[in-house]
Amino acid sequence: MTPQALIFDVFGTLTDWRTSIATHVTAAFAEKGREIDGEDFADAWRGEYQPALDRIRTGGRGYVALDDLHRENLMTVLAATGHSATFAPDEIIELARAWEQLDPWPDVPAGLLRLKDRAIIAACSNGSIALMTRLARHARLPWDCILGADIAQDYKPKPAVYHAACAALRLGPGEVMMVAAHEHDLAGARDAGLATAFIHRPDEFGPDRPTAPAQDEIWDFVAADLHALADQLH
Amino acid sequence: MTPQALIFDVFGTLTDWRTSIATHVTAAFAEKGREIDGEDFADAWRGEYQPALDRIRTGGRGYVALDDLHRENLMTVLAATGHSATFAPDEIIELARAWEQLDPWPDVPAGLLRLKDRAIIAACSNGSIALMTRLARHARLPWDCILGADIAQDYKPKPAVYHAACAALRLGPGEVMMVAAHEHDLAGARDAGLATAFIHRPDEFGPDRPTAPAQDEIWDFVAADLHALADQLH
Repeated sequence: MTPQALIFDVFGTLTDWRTSIATHVTAAFAEKGREIDGEDFADAWRGEYQPALDRIRTGGRGYVALDDLHRENLMTVLAATGHSATFAPDEIIELARAWEQLDPWPDVPAGLLRLKDRAIIAACSNGSIALMTRLARHARLPWDCILGADIAQDYKPKPAVYHAACAALRLGPGEVMMVAAHEHDLAGARDAGLATAFIHRPDEFGPDRPTAPAQDEIWDFVAADLHALADQLH
Repeated sequence: MTPQALIFDVFGTLTDWRTSIATHVTAAFAEKGREIDGEDFADAWRGEYQPALDRIRTGGRGYVALDDLHRENLMTVLAATGHSATFAPDEIIELARAWEQLDPWPDVPAGLLRLKDRAIIAACSNGSIALMTRLARHARLPWDCILGADIAQDYKPKPAVYHAACAALRLGPGEVMMVAAHEHDLAGARDAGLATAFIHRPDEFGPDRPTAPAQDEIWDFVAADLHALADQLH
């Protein structure tokens, strides 16, 4: 069975956020005459991500777009590393937009085109429509449309996000498959009634912390990359 | 000046709804052994469009997606033409989806790709995300993202629809341009603070009712097709 629509996680699943962010922040600090460990900074910045989302998921704060959370989290990390005064406010806004310029994993642009021949393909990220739109132009993600957090005004893995994506396409959850490299995302989708495909991205967190493969029996599909997933969908 | 984003009307501006709908309904009736005038039927179906939207625009009815209005309007026209019993309910649902399979005007797929090199391009139609997604796949409309009525939960030319499209892209109205073949749509966008581009589609309502060209001084750009608009944007 091929679902009528495939909806995708983007950070980690389709793009190598760690290397891209490390490159951007290293360059930004170099322009200020400072040398930092870009990977460490990227990890620290990403480390603020789930706590910031959790406050919104649990109702402790209304919906705020990820663009704004990225900027807030950047300021947190700059303060924690003694760099509160290194960048001007407009430079911080610009640096936070590094998330719009992540590079795709090598299989992604061509693999998405193959999958687009078989089904509707849509982003279902915690990134906003604005962020996903600009990232798609940079990383050559040929979306049919962009769904996700902005549509639901809430964050994955809450069921409302998956259900809002299905509703926007006028499809039932059983007609849609979530594709992600993160099992907590897939668990949320499965609990919401969607089919699931795990893509293994061992290098997401760097060569020293390879992610574990998934057990085949847990998800509807398990694939090494998007081409392998396309091969499995008939 | 080139805006950061171009947002587009779709029915009439990018697609030849009248010819496409006429072809679909003629074929559907032929399958039932009936002969009808497809163009007349298309005009009658489209004639129910603005009254149905007006009821929602004025608050007389909550937001209902255009997919559902198209089906309701089809049933109205079938009843008015003595065809209430010609199609089964599931056939009516299927026939209403003819709006997902409109053909583009000849300049559109390549012209949109040229414009996409210059700015973000997004649908800003009264069609739903679901309808616009499927129509884009049929008509080869290479959107960066799909905005419009579903995002605003209201219908053009109400200012909320243009403002919601800008907000979704995190742009101000002055950074966005509305592209349409209909002056009432452009007037709504201009009043909401957007730039405007008029595309002349003389054949939208058929060869016997050519639409008038726009006066150049009223809109920021006036062009014969998308290639002519791309030529004007530097």
